[in-house]
Amino acid sequence: MRLSERQAELFRGTNYAVVATVGADGVPQTSIVWVDEEDGRPVFNTTNARAKGRNLHRNPLVSILVWERDNEHRYVEVEGVAELEDDEGGENIHTISRKYTGRDFHAPVDRLIVRVTPTRIYDYDE
Amino acid sequence: MRLSERQAELFRGTNYAVVATVGADGVPQTSIVWVDEEDGRPVFNTTNARAKGRNLHRNPLVSILVWERDNEHRYVEVEGVAELEDDEGGENIHTISRKYTGRDFHAPVDRLIVRVTPTRIYDYDE
Repeated sequence: MRLSERQAELFRGTNYAVVATVGADGVPQTSIVWVDEEDGRPVFNTTNARAKGRNLHRNPLVSILVWERDNEHRYVEVEGVAELEDDEGGENIHTISRKYTGRDFHAPVDRLIVRVTPTRIYDYDE
Repeated sequence: MRLSERQAELFRGTNYAVVATVGADGVPQTSIVWVDEEDGRPVFNTTNARAKGRNLHRNPLVSILVWERDNEHRYVEVEGVAELEDDEGGENIHTISRKYTGRDFHAPVDRLIVRVTPTRIYDYDE
């Protein structure tokens, strides 16, 4: 399954998202991330050391919810399977950082690119 | 564990939150909710029919992340256990709706009050 063009636009914009992963103890964990989009799939960037990086190495099931900045009544939730790739040299985190801040990222080490293949998409527009 | 006064304020304000629950298939599910606070615990309101209501009846492990409106660099994530109570007469959803919209809620039936007892609190203030 892939994002529609309208859904992909939310991930390509300078919008924020919440990522949910599941811990070893079964407890869901959430955090706010920057996002991007590639070939109809949501993309975000984390580190191997963070809870969501550790969780995804063990369990790739993930939900990512992006909302239109300043309009929480328009959002898209994507449930799916995460594919992990080392962000060698921090190329991906620099690209995402430049989208949001206009600058390279301050800490581009040990980063992980996460691409989400959607299995379910919930499109909310109230 | 309970919210600090500063954390509780985020839940008492007219801020938005994302709730994550875990489905029968192990996939995390997220959605945006209105929130409130009682005795140091996050509170939100859903319905028995919605995915998060159905998930919580089966598995009470939950994460709720609230951010300061218009400032996604200030947020609090609470992981914990959900306690469910029927919102008879919709009293709770009307109270929450009045906080956000100034009006009673349009659909106060089959509602569920969810109170989260924190087991882990992540306080983010960049």
